[in-house]
Amino acid sequence: MQHKKPVILITNDDGVTAPGIRALVEAVKDLGRVIVVAPDKPQSGMGHAITIGSPLRVDQVNLFDGVEAWQCTGTPADCVKLAKDKILHGPADLCLSGINHGANHSINLIYSGTMSAAMEASIEGIPSAGFSLLDYRWEADFELAKKVVRDVVTRMLERTMPAHFLLNVNIPRVDAHLYKGLKICRQANSKWAEDFEQRTDPRGKDYYWMTGKFINMDTKPGNDVEALEEGFASVVPVKIDFTDYAMKEWLEIEWKQ
Amino acid sequence: MQHKKPVILITNDDGVTAPGIRALVEAVKDLGRVIVVAPDKPQSGMGHAITIGSPLRVDQVNLFDGVEAWQCTGTPADCVKLAKDKILHGPADLCLSGINHGANHSINLIYSGTMSAAMEASIEGIPSAGFSLLDYRWEADFELAKKVVRDVVTRMLERTMPAHFLLNVNIPRVDAHLYKGLKICRQANSKWAEDFEQRTDPRGKDYYWMTGKFINMDTKPGNDVEALEEGFASVVPVKIDFTDYAMKEWLEIEWKQ
Repeated sequence: MQHKKPVILITNDDGVTAPGIRALVEAVKDLGRVIVVAPDKPQSGMGHAITIGSPLRVDQVNLFDGVEAWQCTGTPADCVKLAKDKILHGPADLCLSGINHGANHSINLIYSGTMSAAMEASIEGIPSAGFSLLDYRWEADFELAKKVVRDVVTRMLERTMPAHFLLNVNIPRVDAHLYKGLKICRQANSKWAEDFEQRTDPRGKDYYWMTGKFINMDTKPGNDVEALEEGFASVVPVKIDFTDYAMKEWLEIEWKQ
Repeated sequence: MQHKKPVILITNDDGVTAPGIRALVEAVKDLGRVIVVAPDKPQSGMGHAITIGSPLRVDQVNLFDGVEAWQCTGTPADCVKLAKDKILHGPADLCLSGINHGANHSINLIYSGTMSAAMEASIEGIPSAGFSLLDYRWEADFELAKKVVRDVVTRMLERTMPAHFLLNVNIPRVDAHLYKGLKICRQANSKWAEDFEQRTDPRGKDYYWMTGKFINMDTKPGNDVEALEEGFASVVPVKIDFTDYAMKEWLEIEWKQ
């Protein structure tokens, strides 16, 4: 990677026109050959959805100065799959996803289209990272986030990474002088307490809007929510093997007949 | 649970009219108070998608003899969230998802709407299991699968389960006399090699269908793909904490400045 420019695939889940992906491209465009393949519309909350029941379309767009870019009708995971097979004709050296408008720390990872793209790349053996800023507004300030991205990506390129290298990076919404640096963390034990808001449509039929309150049940140090509250950018390495090995041992004993 | 009938929430990702969910209801309906809340249309490949940009609708349906059932416009994860908040008005004792028409072993777990529903329930602290039959056909024979479901659910109800009890159960497509029983496994290291099929629409514009070949890269014993090939039903306990702790240690050393 020192000798040849790395191919950096960039995607997101807020869509190719989101300010966050523009910030990501700007942060790394001199570090390699950047290619953007991103959804043509917002895909937040898509989790690791893939499109199997309908075909995909992809169109080249001229949105990033001097950077090859494509918009795709599919999900973030679709974008990574399609990029590899039909645009790059092979794996990228690095896949970066984001910068998401809003948090993907703790349990949010599981619902995150941003992270699903990074996970998809990791399954393909491409070192990858998802970046999310704790500010969901379209007009969010990405200056600190760009600095964090640059720090993380430089570290990724400088060292030989272990296989299936996959990071979930969240950036706090703080003034730059209050930012404390990167912190390696684990995923906080947390959940959303849903509260569906019931409304009635003009024809008298009920419908429901999902709303909810984030609940951090984690009281032990070293979790990503705590790090963000302290002003760090949280870096959680993520695993694609979801096996619960402790539970596996329990089952092997308890379910034996 | 021995004294009071457990409340069993049933959902799936093939939709409320799929034969697989009917088989699941039949397999367990005498083991508790069964309530079905399932998508009103197929949601395969939806991963852990949730619906945040549009509202949800839910309607009671009379599809299962003597069993309360609802269809919902959302994803499998939405169904579990909505069921808890608006239909059950509290958590269920057990959540069962499936029986999926098609495999969700190994890496397929990550794309699986069936498993996302079970995962969502597990996040809520509800012991849960997803069931999938290695036969994607609508007219698949669910007799063996029903037997496996009954075996797993009976075991779940008989013993006090550890917190966040979540199982990914896959059932082989074999004749009943060749079935070897349950096998506790880990998730096989595997992936899909995508091959997008390019077509041209009547207006001359290209589009792509996702196709692909499953590749099992796992050569070590104890993985779910191997168990299924041997005629076992694979039982993989699944974790909601996706942190890669080995990678975390590596990062803590290598990224220290």
